[in-house]
Amino acid sequence: MAESNDRPARAASWRERWYEIIFEADTPAGKLFDVVLLIAIVLSVLVVMLESVKSIGEDARFGRWLIAAEWFFTLLFTAEYLARLACARRPGKYALSFFGIVDLLAILPTYFMVLSPGAQRLTVVRSFRLLRAFRIFKLAHMLNEATALRRAIWASRSKISVFLAFIVIVVVIVGSAMHLIEGEESGFTSIPQSMYWAIVTMTTVGYGDVAPQTPLGKALAATIMMLGYSMIIVPTGIVTAELTSGAGPQPLTTQVCPHCMAEGHDHDAGFCKFCGGRL
Amino acid sequence: MAESNDRPARAASWRERWYEIIFEADTPAGKLFDVVLLIAIVLSVLVVMLESVKSIGEDARFGRWLIAAEWFFTLLFTAEYLARLACARRPGKYALSFFGIVDLLAILPTYFMVLSPGAQRLTVVRSFRLLRAFRIFKLAHMLNEATALRRAIWASRSKISVFLAFIVIVVVIVGSAMHLIEGEESGFTSIPQSMYWAIVTMTTVGYGDVAPQTPLGKALAATIMMLGYSMIIVPTGIVTAELTSGAGPQPLTTQVCPHCMAEGHDHDAGFCKFCGGRL
Amino acid sequence: MAESNDRPARAASWRERWYEIIFEADTPAGKLFDVVLLIAIVLSVLVVMLESVKSIGEDARFGRWLIAAEWFFTLLFTAEYLARLACARRPGKYALSFFGIVDLLAILPTYFMVLSPGAQRLTVVRSFRLLRAFRIFKLAHMLNEATALRRAIWASRSKISVFLAFIVIVVVIVGSAMHLIEGEESGFTSIPQSMYWAIVTMTTVGYGDVAPQTPLGKALAATIMMLGYSMIIVPTGIVTAELTSGAGPQPLTTQVCPHCMAEGHDHDAGFCKFCGGRL
Amino acid sequence: MAESNDRPARAASWRERWYEIIFEADTPAGKLFDVVLLIAIVLSVLVVMLESVKSIGEDARFGRWLIAAEWFFTLLFTAEYLARLACARRPGKYALSFFGIVDLLAILPTYFMVLSPGAQRLTVVRSFRLLRAFRIFKLAHMLNEATALRRAIWASRSKISVFLAFIVIVVVIVGSAMHLIEGEESGFTSIPQSMYWAIVTMTTVGYGDVAPQTPLGKALAATIMMLGYSMIIVPTGIVTAELTSGAGPQPLTTQVCPHCMAEGHDHDAGFCKFCGGRL
Repeated sequence: MAESNDRPARAASWRERWYEIIFEADTPAGKLFDVVLLIAIVLSVLVVMLESVKSIGEDARFGRWLIAAEWFFTLLFTAEYLARLACARRPGKYALSFFGIVDLLAILPTYFMVLSPGAQRLTVVRSFRLLRAFRIFKLAHMLNEATALRRAIWASRSKISVFLAFIVIVVVIVGSAMHLIEGEESGFTSIPQSMYWAIVTMTTVGYGDVAPQTPLGKALAATIMMLGYSMIIVPTGIVTAELTSGAGPQPLTTQVCPHCMAEGHDHDAGFCKFCGGRL
Repeated sequence: MAESNDRPARAASWRERWYEIIFEADTPAGKLFDVVLLIAIVLSVLVVMLESVKSIGEDARFGRWLIAAEWFFTLLFTAEYLARLACARRPGKYALSFFGIVDLLAILPTYFMVLSPGAQRLTVVRSFRLLRAFRIFKLAHMLNEATALRRAIWASRSKISVFLAFIVIVVVIVGSAMHLIEGEESGFTSIPQSMYWAIVTMTTVGYGDVAPQTPLGKALAATIMMLGYSMIIVPTGIVTAELTSGAGPQPLTTQVCPHCMAEGHDHDAGFCKFCGGRL
Repeated sequence: MAESNDRPARAASWRERWYEIIFEADTPAGKLFDVVLLIAIVLSVLVVMLESVKSIGEDARFGRWLIAAEWFFTLLFTAEYLARLACARRPGKYALSFFGIVDLLAILPTYFMVLSPGAQRLTVVRSFRLLRAFRIFKLAHMLNEATALRRAIWASRSKISVFLAFIVIVVVIVGSAMHLIEGEESGFTSIPQSMYWAIVTMTTVGYGDVAPQTPLGKALAATIMMLGYSMIIVPTGIVTAELTSGAGPQPLTTQVCPHCMAEGHDHDAGFCKFCGGRL
Repeated sequence: MAESNDRPARAASWRERWYEIIFEADTPAGKLFDVVLLIAIVLSVLVVMLESVKSIGEDARFGRWLIAAEWFFTLLFTAEYLARLACARRPGKYALSFFGIVDLLAILPTYFMVLSPGAQRLTVVRSFRLLRAFRIFKLAHMLNEATALRRAIWASRSKISVFLAFIVIVVVIVGSAMHLIEGEESGFTSIPQSMYWAIVTMTTVGYGDVAPQTPLGKALAATIMMLGYSMIIVPTGIVTAELTSGAGPQPLTTQVCPHCMAEGHDHDAGFCKFCGGRL
C-alpha cells in the first residue's frame, strides 16, 4: 500500500512519465498515444500497399507523394523506437523482444533503400515495412475483447490442433488416392499437388484450378466435401461447450512488465508472473 | 394510468389515427398497412430488377408494362411519403431521419428521369430506386425474431470486429508475402490484389480467378485455408457462450417515438430513451 | 385401458395386421417392411440415375438390365401402393395426402412411357420417378434423430428465415451496386445476374464464373465476403442458445394416425392431435 | 489388488517390458517410443510424397537419397512389426487387427518393388506405403484431446448422419431438377453429374467447373446455396447443446488390451470391455 502510494511521486521523473505514455494505456495520454500510433501504422501500411500498385507507384505525381509519406512515417517510427529504447527500464530486453525486433525491422528498409538501391531484392526489402501491420497486435492489449478472443483461441488451441491434425491425415490419404485415381491428365500431377487440392476442397474453398474428371474421382471428392462441410460442427461444439462451462473472461490491466515486456497481468498483481519482476 | 386511459379518446383525431396505422404495428389496421407496404416494396424492387435485364427491359410489350408498374409504385410511395409527413408529430425530424431520406430518395429517380433523360447517368439514378429494399428493414420491427437477431449482432459486434480485425492483419501479412512469392505471372500483381486473393481464400469463397502456381505459394495458401476454415470456430464459441449465459431476448413494443422516430422502447416506457420525448 | 386390451384381438383381421406392417414401425414385421422398402427405394433411384448416364443408359447390355430393374421396382411399388390403399382406414385421405400423391407419381411414368413414347417430354416424365427419393422422408419417422433434427429446424425456422431475409436484402443492395460498379464487361450484365453473384459470394460458394474486375468492385466483394463469412456466427449462436436452454428432444411413437396419416404423436396419446381421430 | 501388486514383478520378463514400451504410453520409455515412431512415420510419408514429384523423384542425386531413406524406414518399420509380433500376448490377433494389417501393408511395397518391377501397377503398390499415415491414428491414443474429439464425433455420429442423409436426398432431387432445367450444354450431362454439382454447391465448395447458365437454373442454384449455407446452423446447435448438457470428456488410460488390441479402457477396468480378456 505504502509503495503504491509512493508511485505517483516516483513517476514524476520524465522517464517514468514517458514509460507510462508509451508502454501502457491506462492514462489518457497513454490512450491518445496508442490511438495516434494506430492511425500512423494503418496509414503507413496503406502507403506501402499503394506503392506496390504499378499504376499508382510509378505515376510521377502520386509516386512523389508516396515517397514523402514513407519518409514521414519512417522518421516518426524511428523517433518512437528511440523513445521506447530511452524510457524502457531494461532497453536490451525490449530491443531483443519480438515486438522490439519487429519495430526495428519495420523502419530499416527505408534507410537501406537509400544506401544500396539494388533493383531485384528491393521488393523483398520493401515488404519488410509491412511488418508494421504486426505492430497492431501490440495495440490489441487495449481491448478486452481481443483478450477474450485470444484466451478462447489459447484455451482451444489443442482441440483445434488435433482437429487440424485429423484433417491433415485425411488430406494425405485422400490426396494420394486422388493421385492414383485421376492421374496427371486432370492436374493431380503429384501427391503434394493432390494434397493441395484436398485441402482446397475440404476447407470448402474450392478454387476449381484442379478438379476431378473421372466418375470415381468425383465420388471421392463429393465424399470429402461432405466430410469437410459437416466435420466443422464437432470442434465448434467442443469449443463452445468448454467456453460455456468455464467462467467468462475477466478484464486485465493493460500494464506491461517493465522488465520483460510481458502483459496480461491481473489487477491485483504486484509482480510479473513471467519474470517475477516488480510491476 | 389516467394518461393511458385518456389516449384512446385523444386518438380520435384523424392525425392520431393515421399515425397509429402508418408508424406503428400494434393495431390490426397498422399490421395490414405494413403487410401491404411490404408487398408493394417487394414488387417494386422486382420491377426495377426486371428492367435491368436487357431481354425484358428492352422488349416492347414487357417494357411498357414495367414502366406502368414503375409509375404505379412511385405514385403509391409518394402518397405514403406525404401521408407520413402529414401525420408525423415532428415532420422535419422524420424527413431528416435515415428512413425519411431513404423514402424520399426511393421515389425521386422516376420523376427525375422524366425531367432530364440523360443516357449515361441514368443507370446510377435508376438504381437509387433499389433503396426501397432498405425500407424492408423498417418493417422488421414487426418481428420479434428480427429484434433478437439484431440484439445478438449488436451484443457480439465488438467480438466480430476484433475477429475481423485479426483476419485483416493476417490478410495484410499473407497478401504481401504472396505478392513476393508468386509475383506478377500468377496474377498477384500488387499487394492490394494479393490481399483480395487472401480474403477470397480465408473466407473460403475461393473464386479461382487468382490462384497460387508455385509450390511455396500453394503451401502458404493451404496454411491460411486451414486457418480460415478452423478460425471461425472461436468467435462462434464466444458469441454462443455469451448468448447462452445471458437472458433470452425480450419482446419489445413496436411503438415508434413520435419525436425522433426511434424504436426499441420497453413496454413500460413512458418517455423515449433516446430523445426524452413523451411516447 | 379396456380398449387398448381389445386392440390385439381386433388386430387379428388381415387389414389391421397389414396396416401395422405397412404404416407403422413398432412391430418387427413393420420394421422389416420399412427396411426392405428403404433398400428398394435407394436401388430404384440408382437405376434411374444410371439410366441418365449416356454411356450406361444407351449401352445395349446394361440398358436392358436397367429396363428390367425399372419394371421390377415399378411393379413392386404398384403392389405397395395398392396394399396401402387396401388397408388404410380412409383410403381417399391417403390417396390425396402428400405422400399418397408422391407414391402415385413415382410409379406412373413407367406405365406412361409404354403408352405414349414421346421423345422430347420423355426426360421430364422419366424424372418424376425420382420423386421416389422423397419417400425416404416418410421412412424417417423410424429415427428419433431425424425427429430431433426436424424439431430443431422447426424451432429455429423463424430465426433462419429472418437471417436469410437479411441476407436477401443485402444481396439486393450489393447486387445492384456491383451492377453499377462493374458493368457488363465483367459479366454483371443485369441486377438479377449481379444478385446471383452476390449470393454465390456471400454463401462462400464462389464459383468464379462471374468475378469483379475493378478495384472498387473487388473492395466491395471483399467486404461482403467478410460479412458472409462472419455473419453465420450470430444465428448459430442464437439457435444453439435456444436449444441449450430448452429441454432435449423426446422420442415419439412411430404410430401414424389411421385417419389423416399424420405422425409425431406422443406415446400416451389416444387421439390424433391433428384430426382428433382415434389412434 | 493382490494381482495388480503382482504385476510389476511379472513385468520383469523382457516380453512384458517390451510390451509396455511398444503398446502402451504410460511409462517414459513408452512415450519416447511413440514420439520416435511418430517422427519416423511423418518423415517416411514425406519421402513417399517427394518421390511422387517428378522433378524431385527423377532427379539423379535427390532420387538416390530418397531410395536410401525409403529403405531405412522400411527396415525400421519391419523391425518394429516383428517386435510387435514377438511381444504381443496373442500375436495372431494383432496380425489380423486393423492396425496389424496396416502395419504389414505399409512395409510390403518396398520389398515387392525389388522382386517384381512392373511399371504400370508400380504407382498403386507404391501408394500403399502411404497407409503409414493411418498409423498416426494409432498414436492418437496418447492425446486426451483426440479422445475428447473422437467421443464428440462418436456421440454426434447419428445426428451428423441424419443431417448428411437429408442433404443427400436434397442433392438427388435438386440434381435431377438441374439436369432437366440446364440440360447437357451447361455441363449437367447426367443425373450423377448434376448431383456432383449439387454437392459442390451445397457444401459451399463451388469449383465452378460446372455452373448453371439459365436464369431458372441460377435461381434454383441460389436457393440451395442459401440452404446449404444456413442449414449447417442446426446440427451445430444440436451437437453443441448435447455436449454442453453432457459431462465433460474424462481422460482414459492409454492401456491396450493384450488380447484384442482394443483401447479406450477406463482407469478402473480390470477386463477388456470388448473381448473380456484380462487387462
